[in-house]
Amino acid sequence: MADKPQTYDVIIIGGGPAGLSAAIYTARARLSSLLIEMGLVGGQAMNAERLDNYPGFPDGISGMELTDRMRQQAEKYGLETVTAEVTGTKLAGKTKAVSTTEGDFKARTVIIAGGCRRQKLGVAGEAEFAGRGVSYCATCDGAFFRDVPIAVVGGGNSAVTEALHLTKFASKVSVIHRRDKLRASAVVQERAFADPKIEFVWNSVVEQIEGEDAVKRLKLRNVKTDAKSELEVAGVFVSTGLSPNTDYLKGLVPLDEKTGAVIVNADMETEVAGVYAAGDIRQHSPRQVIIAAGDGAVAGVAVTRYLTEYPW
Amino acid sequence: MADKPQTYDVIIIGGGPAGLSAAIYTARARLSSLLIEMGLVGGQAMNAERLDNYPGFPDGISGMELTDRMRQQAEKYGLETVTAEVTGTKLAGKTKAVSTTEGDFKARTVIIAGGCRRQKLGVAGEAEFAGRGVSYCATCDGAFFRDVPIAVVGGGNSAVTEALHLTKFASKVSVIHRRDKLRASAVVQERAFADPKIEFVWNSVVEQIEGEDAVKRLKLRNVKTDAKSELEVAGVFVSTGLSPNTDYLKGLVPLDEKTGAVIVNADMETEVAGVYAAGDIRQHSPRQVIIAAGDGAVAGVAVTRYLTEYPW
Repeated sequence: MADKPQTYDVIIIGGGPAGLSAAIYTARARLSSLLIEMGLVGGQAMNAERLDNYPGFPDGISGMELTDRMRQQAEKYGLETVTAEVTGTKLAGKTKAVSTTEGDFKARTVIIAGGCRRQKLGVAGEAEFAGRGVSYCATCDGAFFRDVPIAVVGGGNSAVTEALHLTKFASKVSVIHRRDKLRASAVVQERAFADPKIEFVWNSVVEQIEGEDAVKRLKLRNVKTDAKSELEVAGVFVSTGLSPNTDYLKGLVPLDEKTGAVIVNADMETEVAGVYAAGDIRQHSPRQVIIAAGDGAVAGVAVTRYLTEYPW
Repeated sequence: MADKPQTYDVIIIGGGPAGLSAAIYTARARLSSLLIEMGLVGGQAMNAERLDNYPGFPDGISGMELTDRMRQQAEKYGLETVTAEVTGTKLAGKTKAVSTTEGDFKARTVIIAGGCRRQKLGVAGEAEFAGRGVSYCATCDGAFFRDVPIAVVGGGNSAVTEALHLTKFASKVSVIHRRDKLRASAVVQERAFADPKIEFVWNSVVEQIEGEDAVKRLKLRNVKTDAKSELEVAGVFVSTGLSPNTDYLKGLVPLDEKTGAVIVNADMETEVAGVYAAGDIRQHSPRQVIIAAGDGAVAGVAVTRYLTEYPW
């Protein structure tokens, strides 16, 4: 295996738990495997300060450490990695092509595991104050907000978990949720309700983010009463949902019309021969790290079988 | 939650990676969860001396340690466990009943995660050298046999696919099959016949596995001529089949007619409301620990949603 192959057995797009798990399987199966990740290997899981529900770590593990361990594991078996953004793909036919900011790559099969990105609020001030009070990653940016009031927007598991994490830094954390109850798991809800630093602002949405050099206040609207209010905060963490990173795949593989997620069968196969999708990017994913890792292994096994049966 | 509930939210049958992962999810969701395991918690994964492909453990981990960690994790959130053999179930209707050698239990939902039993050769030396040259999983253990001769027993698709996979590691792979032709698909057969590392030993069965610290040779018998022979190998992969532990489920949930596996959709739901299956016991499972753990989480998430939507 001294020469770098011209055509890889498999290109994996995305270095989160799904892509890394797929890579562990394909690299261990001696398939020449290239993983393309646009940022740091780890994906969205990197944002999790502590994962308590990845089976095998009873005391929890940070998303960063877990995905770093997965990367080590795949590289041990020969995984190659390139840091680049995917700009386009050619997926039909026997040889697939993936164009990136670092050049073009070819492979016999492709596993799409590019995950999701945070949905933006889409309100005035959001873009202006991005990085100056507006954040999409509590793990990354929490420590910048010591002894000041901040807000978290959202009511799901990530939003409430992030609020709990942020109590370590902030003087007060206001959770702004458009409904009157949370979607977070029972354990997480209980912890949040018991935390004296956390306050809930129910049935409310952010309409504007204001400030000078940095964020100073949020303009809120109660969706039931239409009452307007202001909330003085030094930062706002947006955690309202996720969108699959499938913009460059439109017209190339069947996508869920509503969500944009990649449609796959139980073997993580798309309708295009030799093209697979795994993890948060595939349709109906419950978006959990262990499920993404399971998906990746399913795709890795399927690719291995496919290349055994059709070894052109 | 001081009183032990009469009817659990969920009963999980089977304490392997699928059942334990499901339990982590349901217990963390504050669902009263009972896990029934007939032997030691851990399932078939307990037999793996070292798992190298469970993402998150780059240096490998024993099946015993991994599943013990999963058990600790689930118990931390309140999982109850009973050691008993399931003798029968009543799965129709809102309240499910599970009869065991330690009494009867009731629940609103049931996750069937009882795994498979390996079809063993049933020959002398097989148990003695298990994990020391005798393996039932090429994906798991192939990489341990670099540049040594090995054997695969079986003639089906998995046996021949495993043989092909093993050529990446072994110096030579002898496929021992009791008939004079394979049951594997044509493409797989063609590929195997064309592979210079693969040799076929037709019409033959293993009669004994011999060695010292580890496997050294197989004693073979030709079933047509009755001729005896010896084959020097460092390892033998038994791939004669797996049987899902679903005997007690016949007529209660739809099973795959041929394999006996439980038929589920992508959410691990059976056709019976409130009844789920996860892991090696479900139809089309690739039978890998990480995939079983992913399945269990999918079932746990599905049960949580089901009980939220129908909280009778």
